[in-house]
Amino acid sequence: MANALIIGASGQIGKQAVGKLLDAGHHVVAPVRNKDKLSDIEHPHLSVVEQDLEKDFSAHFEGVDTVVFTAGSGGNTGAEKTLLIDLWAARNAVNYAKSAKVPKFIMVSSIGAGDPDAVESPIKPYLVAKHMADEHLIHSGLHYIILRPGTLLNEPGTHLVRTDMPTNKNEAVIPREDVATAIVESVARENNNDVITYLFKGETPIAQVFQ
Amino acid sequence: MANALIIGASGQIGKQAVGKLLDAGHHVVAPVRNKDKLSDIEHPHLSVVEQDLEKDFSAHFEGVDTVVFTAGSGGNTGAEKTLLIDLWAARNAVNYAKSAKVPKFIMVSSIGAGDPDAVESPIKPYLVAKHMADEHLIHSGLHYIILRPGTLLNEPGTHLVRTDMPTNKNEAVIPREDVATAIVESVARENNNDVITYLFKGETPIAQVFQ
Repeated sequence: MANALIIGASGQIGKQAVGKLLDAGHHVVAPVRNKDKLSDIEHPHLSVVEQDLEKDFSAHFEGVDTVVFTAGSGGNTGAEKTLLIDLWAARNAVNYAKSAKVPKFIMVSSIGAGDPDAVESPIKPYLVAKHMADEHLIHSGLHYIILRPGTLLNEPGTHLVRTDMPTNKNEAVIPREDVATAIVESVARENNNDVITYLFKGETPIAQVFQ
Repeated sequence: MANALIIGASGQIGKQAVGKLLDAGHHVVAPVRNKDKLSDIEHPHLSVVEQDLEKDFSAHFEGVDTVVFTAGSGGNTGAEKTLLIDLWAARNAVNYAKSAKVPKFIMVSSIGAGDPDAVESPIKPYLVAKHMADEHLIHSGLHYIILRPGTLLNEPGTHLVRTDMPTNKNEAVIPREDVATAIVESVARENNNDVITYLFKGETPIAQVFQ
């Protein structure tokens, strides 16, 4: 069982990931700005601590096995927060993890972050931030799993995905719950190869993708 | 004499750098969005080309000896443009320079970009973008000169600078013209050591700093 640090635990994906990680027997540390947002989850293996990600949050990395970074805006907050959270807090999390010798870093990235120039979209600034955060992680020397989900849906997960890009753009979608499941499978994954994995609704069990 | 590519040639520093580079006998290529902004400079060694930095601008790097990146907002445009220009266009310029085997890259950065977390300021998002652009250049393998001027002034240059941080914050200033001069000296510099140089009004001739 892992000691997982979840950055962004009160977000829509983060919160589902916390619940599933606890169900799977892991210990979870959840630094959040507003503890009330996690007040409905009580568990002996969950430690919720108050933390502003725009401040130094290095204190939470000691003894952690896996960092999950899923904080951020999804492209809909202002670009200043995109710079300060999606990019800078992610960069700091990578550096803190490196200093604390955390063996694994899971980054929740986004479809489009691999090549922001391929996108003509109002969310391009967001994709630039995600690209640079991913690049910082890739160059850090940490073992990484980068998840690049398609457009996020608020519907129950199917536990079934595909990792190749659908030709029909409308199929480049995935329930948030399945991204949370992918996080849990990434935490449990024993293979130490670094990977960048796209995630869309599909027909392959998530557990199989992260074997 | 160098073939210099100036990204941001119609900006306040860029335009002065173009004039000084031409005066010093260099050839200058200036991709700008609005050619009118450079219509008052005519010179047989100046090539002004229309270019939006949010599009692919790799075409201008062939045969270039030195790239100067001085495009951007100085922290006063919106954060979206900070992401798209100060960060992403800088990142693309570095990658294009690398592909075209350009031997030298001069980045006009900013005081504060070395450690954005040390700053409590509304321009922190801007400093994050500048930090990540600088880091991308540093890790690129290109030979680099990163200039980090203090607060920019619109007054005539003195050609005299200091590179250590003044203890009095009010002295952490520099005329834009002196930054332009520092660019010209950086272009001419024969020493191939990579450097990050802070620049403030001082008492050392700029030419001596870049020997």
